[in-house]
Amino acid sequence: MYRDNPLKQLSWEDYQKLSVNERAPLFLRNEKPYHALFAQQYNRPIVERVCELATRIRKIAKTRGGMRFLQDLLAEKRAMLYFSQPSTRTFLSFYASCQILGIKTAEVRDTATSSEIKGESQEDSVRTFSSYFDLLIMRHPTKGFAERIAWLLSNSERPVPVMNAGSGADQHPTQALLDMYTLQRSFEKRGGIDGKHIAFVGDLARGRTVRSLAALLRHFDGVKAYFVAPDALQIGSDILQVLDEAGMEYEVTTEFQPVIPQADAIYMTRIQDEWDQAQESRLLDTSNYHFTVDDLAKLKSDAIIMHPLPRRSEIDPEVDRDPRAMYWRQVRNGMWVRTALICTTFDRDNEVDRYYEDLIR
Amino acid sequence: MYRDNPLKQLSWEDYQKLSVNERAPLFLRNEKPYHALFAQQYNRPIVERVCELATRIRKIAKTRGGMRFLQDLLAEKRAMLYFSQPSTRTFLSFYASCQILGIKTAEVRDTATSSEIKGESQEDSVRTFSSYFDLLIMRHPTKGFAERIAWLLSNSERPVPVMNAGSGADQHPTQALLDMYTLQRSFEKRGGIDGKHIAFVGDLARGRTVRSLAALLRHFDGVKAYFVAPDALQIGSDILQVLDEAGMEYEVTTEFQPVIPQADAIYMTRIQDEWDQAQESRLLDTSNYHFTVDDLAKLKSDAIIMHPLPRRSEIDPEVDRDPRAMYWRQVRNGMWVRTALICTTFDRDNEVDRYYEDLIR
Amino acid sequence: MYRDNPLKQLSWEDYQKLSVNERAPLFLRNEKPYHALFAQQYNRPIVERVCELATRIRKIAKTRGGMRFLQDLLAEKRAMLYFSQPSTRTFLSFYASCQILGIKTAEVRDTATSSEIKGESQEDSVRTFSSYFDLLIMRHPTKGFAERIAWLLSNSERPVPVMNAGSGADQHPTQALLDMYTLQRSFEKRGGIDGKHIAFVGDLARGRTVRSLAALLRHFDGVKAYFVAPDALQIGSDILQVLDEAGMEYEVTTEFQPVIPQADAIYMTRIQDEWDQAQESRLLDTSNYHFTVDDLAKLKSDAIIMHPLPRRSEIDPEVDRDPRAMYWRQVRNGMWVRTALICTTFDRDNEVDRYYEDLIR
Repeated sequence: MYRDNPLKQLSWEDYQKLSVNERAPLFLRNEKPYHALFAQQYNRPIVERVCELATRIRKIAKTRGGMRFLQDLLAEKRAMLYFSQPSTRTFLSFYASCQILGIKTAEVRDTATSSEIKGESQEDSVRTFSSYFDLLIMRHPTKGFAERIAWLLSNSERPVPVMNAGSGADQHPTQALLDMYTLQRSFEKRGGIDGKHIAFVGDLARGRTVRSLAALLRHFDGVKAYFVAPDALQIGSDILQVLDEAGMEYEVTTEFQPVIPQADAIYMTRIQDEWDQAQESRLLDTSNYHFTVDDLAKLKSDAIIMHPLPRRSEIDPEVDRDPRAMYWRQVRNGMWVRTALICTTFDRDNEVDRYYEDLIR
Repeated sequence: MYRDNPLKQLSWEDYQKLSVNERAPLFLRNEKPYHALFAQQYNRPIVERVCELATRIRKIAKTRGGMRFLQDLLAEKRAMLYFSQPSTRTFLSFYASCQILGIKTAEVRDTATSSEIKGESQEDSVRTFSSYFDLLIMRHPTKGFAERIAWLLSNSERPVPVMNAGSGADQHPTQALLDMYTLQRSFEKRGGIDGKHIAFVGDLARGRTVRSLAALLRHFDGVKAYFVAPDALQIGSDILQVLDEAGMEYEVTTEFQPVIPQADAIYMTRIQDEWDQAQESRLLDTSNYHFTVDDLAKLKSDAIIMHPLPRRSEIDPEVDRDPRAMYWRQVRNGMWVRTALICTTFDRDNEVDRYYEDLIR
Repeated sequence: MYRDNPLKQLSWEDYQKLSVNERAPLFLRNEKPYHALFAQQYNRPIVERVCELATRIRKIAKTRGGMRFLQDLLAEKRAMLYFSQPSTRTFLSFYASCQILGIKTAEVRDTATSSEIKGESQEDSVRTFSSYFDLLIMRHPTKGFAERIAWLLSNSERPVPVMNAGSGADQHPTQALLDMYTLQRSFEKRGGIDGKHIAFVGDLARGRTVRSLAALLRHFDGVKAYFVAPDALQIGSDILQVLDEAGMEYEVTTEFQPVIPQADAIYMTRIQDEWDQAQESRLLDTSNYHFTVDDLAKLKSDAIIMHPLPRRSEIDPEVDRDPRAMYWRQVRNGMWVRTALICTTFDRDNEVDRYYEDLIR
């Protein structure tokens, strides 16, 4: 059993000595995720519960009355979106989630606020911002900063929950959850995620998306991953080790075409050349890792195509019209998953359940 | 009769071949404007209905209870204001309109969002933004971009309505509607807009305001326009041709003073020297096209002075105190007209009517 | 008795001839502050009423039902936050206050808006912004600008209230009120502010905080001030003159250590070296004016430590854990005081009283 605020009983030094698996339970309240910081916090029951809740919220939202119910659910709360790195997509998704639940939002998006110019520490700045709000949603360039703030606030008079909307190069947990939700929805009538073949294509060396998603897929049975990339952008051995430990099957290859007919889901990614040190990926010919209209014929009739977006030329816009193209729905799934997570954090998920049960009765 | 979504049955190539008059009906739903893209969409019955609705909303808003009714009207909706060109005035006016109706707002105002830096197409960016929202209000530098997006979304799973808050140099339809509303309110007890003499003064060569307004005035009977400007800034022959075709009377002159006593409305405009190519208008002496305190004595007692704002020295601030100075009320009329348009888009105008009828009973 | 809108009966020229004490009553409506412009507006009964109201609102806000009551209180209003100088702290505090009361917010934060580029006067810009809103909260670099706008709007068709969130180097009235509220709360069980010894430490020459607070403290009995600073940063003679006139006791000293055990409140301030003309304060050794963990032992057990934040090294972060460290609570007190002020402006304070009386019955 986890106590009300286990972080309060730990010094920052002691916290840092813990492994990621030891840290995970510290962010629960009533066995539900309170802070949302890294993908490893979510085991299979939590992932499945978030997906169930997202679906219920999505269905409730279809009517005017349902929307009113949702907007009343957390109407007394206020959220601060503190994005010190640029992001429009994730920002708007969280923003819309808050609005769906009636949460009032405020934002700080400048990297250089006046107070930092005045010599204030980042910790003091964030603590000030959070003084006025009940929820802190944050993106920050420093690895682990969201955890640091969750610890700091837990040791203050206002231990408000923290949601990590991307920190450093390593974690983007809500992206991983929305990908899981997209898989779960798409395979709902085909036995769920268990046993599916999922191909990751493109830039697998960089990009926290694939990294976080792999950490969640290992909780499911019989999933097989294909890592399809040129050698220079292939998946890291650290992730393969995690999969090995979990006993998850995978294949590493440079050849995209043979994988297409075998996949249940093809997860396309963008070449993240903003991380290049000497234009190395710009010099690569990555056109073999594009999904074209011609590839549609090779794809299983019930497979899906995913992409975290933004895209460049990895997927031809003509593909968008195919019903297997799932990336636009994936965008919207993000909003529902984040809405579900916020409900859970504030322990109002049971109110959603009750409304939903009345609805389907 | 127009079907539910006529844009879906047209390719973009076919759409572009249509004349503006052929395009207009495509943006209706239930014979009401759904998308708001260009002034030519609005015929006389639509203009009059929007004015009627604006007045009803304005009167309902006078009481605390009426405001609560309005704020409940579209409380389940969320709007995205995507302004990739600077605008404070139009932005705030739409923003306030949304708030009056309880619509939650989000905004994207940067021209260079992170995703565009990452190589995303503008169409993908806007489609992503609109994924989370129920209404897209947009200003964009590219002529016709709002139409392009209305077509694109109509062909997606989320055909949300698009409102053009200014695109390129040509269209700013809600400005034209608010000007019509100001004329209609001002001449309410004098038989309406029919038969009125309206003088446009200043920079008529540039400025989409006069252009859009002329397109609406031609629907009214016996209106006479005066175009008062130095030769270099005089009205374009294309607009005169539209008025000729509509059989509308007009006079083109460089002399402002003789026009003042003849006008029922004087529409002052700013010299838009930001469009100068070689400071040509800065070198002009335009002081003859200013309205001064002395001119008030020459003006009919029931005439009005309008200005789309911002002003420079076209109107002496001392004139503001005269009851015929209508430009500050014009600002606020914009908010009411936009509120009326949004109600119409979402087909909630009938709820306004019912509340209003109870109110005046 | 002050009439409905006394500002309307005065020209701007006549207004400027008035002393601050003659101006103060012009900003009242029903003997309550309507505009909030400078600290001298607030006499002892007003300060005490604002504190009482802040406490009631704070207690009401503790429950979900209470928050709903508050969010309904001004739900039909819209506020414009016009911050033409950077500020995150004060901005967010006002923003949260509006949200607590259900007021919809909009913001203009750029110093160079498009309209100013187009040659619009600042008065026209602000008048336009305020056209759409019911309350104007503003920060501006020009001394007296908020008063100018309060006068201007009072002479327009929309005399909306103006709140000064900092203007020029001289006034920041809501900061002074939140400091008073922090003192009042902290000394609630010790007879209130009367008779207390308050030490101001650091940069007293610059910083409108100390200046405004001193203007309010003179309304209380037997308060003694210590001004503790290096000679170069010592308090101005103009303030001492105000205190002399009010008969308030004070001591001016360069020695911090002997003052610590005598103080009931220690008000630490940051060296505002952004006002330096030749790095003069950066060359000073101000470490004697820091509050350290060691100083805690010298401090009275029921004294408090305040700081307007942001801090640099004036207070060791280790001090934060001491219950006498009041600066984080001070941040949140600001939100409650501003909420109370807004309620008062709109004359809804009585509704708060009625709810509160039901609550404690």
